[in-house]
Amino acid sequence: MSRRIVVTGSSGFIGRNCLTPLREAGFEVVAVGRRHPRTEGVEFRQCDLLNADDRRRAFTGVNASHLLHLAWYLEPGSYAESALNLDWLAASLGLVRQFAEEGGQRAVVAGTCFEYDWSRPRLAEGSPLAPRTMYGGAKRLLHEALSLYASRGGPEVAWARLFFLFGPGEDRRRLAAAVATSVLSGHEVATSAGTQRRDYMYVEDAGRALAALAASSVTEAVNVATGDAIAVRDLIGMIGREAGNLDLVRFGARPTPPDEPDLVEADVTRLNSEVGFSAYTALEEAVKATVEWWRRELRL
Amino acid sequence: MSRRIVVTGSSGFIGRNCLTPLREAGFEVVAVGRRHPRTEGVEFRQCDLLNADDRRRAFTGVNASHLLHLAWYLEPGSYAESALNLDWLAASLGLVRQFAEEGGQRAVVAGTCFEYDWSRPRLAEGSPLAPRTMYGGAKRLLHEALSLYASRGGPEVAWARLFFLFGPGEDRRRLAAAVATSVLSGHEVATSAGTQRRDYMYVEDAGRALAALAASSVTEAVNVATGDAIAVRDLIGMIGREAGNLDLVRFGARPTPPDEPDLVEADVTRLNSEVGFSAYTALEEAVKATVEWWRRELRL
Repeated sequence: MSRRIVVTGSSGFIGRNCLTPLREAGFEVVAVGRRHPRTEGVEFRQCDLLNADDRRRAFTGVNASHLLHLAWYLEPGSYAESALNLDWLAASLGLVRQFAEEGGQRAVVAGTCFEYDWSRPRLAEGSPLAPRTMYGGAKRLLHEALSLYASRGGPEVAWARLFFLFGPGEDRRRLAAAVATSVLSGHEVATSAGTQRRDYMYVEDAGRALAALAASSVTEAVNVATGDAIAVRDLIGMIGREAGNLDLVRFGARPTPPDEPDLVEADVTRLNSEVGFSAYTALEEAVKATVEWWRRELRL
Repeated sequence: MSRRIVVTGSSGFIGRNCLTPLREAGFEVVAVGRRHPRTEGVEFRQCDLLNADDRRRAFTGVNASHLLHLAWYLEPGSYAESALNLDWLAASLGLVRQFAEEGGQRAVVAGTCFEYDWSRPRLAEGSPLAPRTMYGGAKRLLHEALSLYASRGGPEVAWARLFFLFGPGEDRRRLAAAVATSVLSGHEVATSAGTQRRDYMYVEDAGRALAALAASSVTEAVNVATGDAIAVRDLIGMIGREAGNLDLVRFGARPTPPDEPDLVEADVTRLNSEVGFSAYTALEEAVKATVEWWRRELRL
């Protein structure tokens, strides 16, 4: 049986790192969305996923067995509390309904560590949920709705809870990218003290992990993370040094946001053992590749 | 300030009983949906609420301050586990988003007693939820999504958990209507033993209660019920007698569905004290009015 997967958000930070691993796992890949992912061997259908007619067109005749749904409203600075989270919740339900109507069997959908209760030390898939943002809340509700659907004859669902990411192609308003580009350009960059520890994953690893999850038969929530949190200042320090001048990073020049927990770290037993993904890139190598990518991107 | 309310499901069993009470409470009423409710003094906009363009048209220029959203997929026999519950979940989110975009302030939305954990004796709004059907699950998720929205600048939401209903205009495939119409027509009707007790409300009372809720400023979940459960066989008995021949009702000729709890009864403190609705029709009078209505409807 040929496996055909529709990918949304394929031109985004995570999505573009999934396409080649998906092809390597034997999938025929059909990217749907606003922008072409510009990856070899990938079909593309342009559509606005917030539009029901477009969603219909996205699946008609595609004969997709799988869906990897990554698209969402993720504008840095505004995504966390935007009412657009509700529009993406509704559109995502519509998308999976359409996928199912056209015979789709298995959906892998992007969840987030922001669904969890962050007061807990180590977050396993069964840990309590207590989203503090509209984004986390809407994702949690989408997961529940899709689980309900799966329990009643809908497509099976794997819910990929992504934690923190860095790597090539990141939006420059986000932390790791802001540090890399500022330092490479010779500008100072102000950060918090960065003593909080976060589970940061190299985005290329996330792409491979998502492809492995899609190819597996694992269902329900799966943390997509390293299981090994790093102090934010240590990650930033590595990036600043690799970019050539750690002195340009002004640690503590920005206040640490209130209510920031000391630690956000995933239990990755399911990802490692059930999905079988554990081929993590060494942190030094990932930082080096990221800074090299930015150097090329900035034409330095 | 003039209060204008958009009502969905206005031609349905519950909806048509809300329109006059809403007008009496001082609302200008705009009915939107597939069918005209045929009530005097009510504006009507025909639209398919599952269609986003239609939803937009439904609110454009209406200048609605309030929304009463009752429309849903409720086909007897199939509604409980239909995937259309997910489409109505998504469409209902879209509807409230559109209402908010056009300046809407307060939404009253139909929830259900099927959201609750029915193993509990008396169901207050804070009682545990454990929906066993897709219908109950989808309603619960809509409530959570709308509460999330309300907490982040969306319209305030009153969530009306309706229990069991009977009265004029009920679908003839549902219990009370089936008994009334069968007996009036001289046919036998098979029912379960009917020893289970259910909180049955006269639909005209439900209409008045929903209008009172809309006119109030009470938010979050509110049970819309009597607080006084009746054995199903007692209600059916009253209907059968009023229709002229209780002998046509074959109690116990159908098995009682497994897992049916003995009692489903609401705590109605919020409805009575906070909303201020307690003008219940006496049961005898409600049964008499219902059977009379069916007699006219069947031209007997």
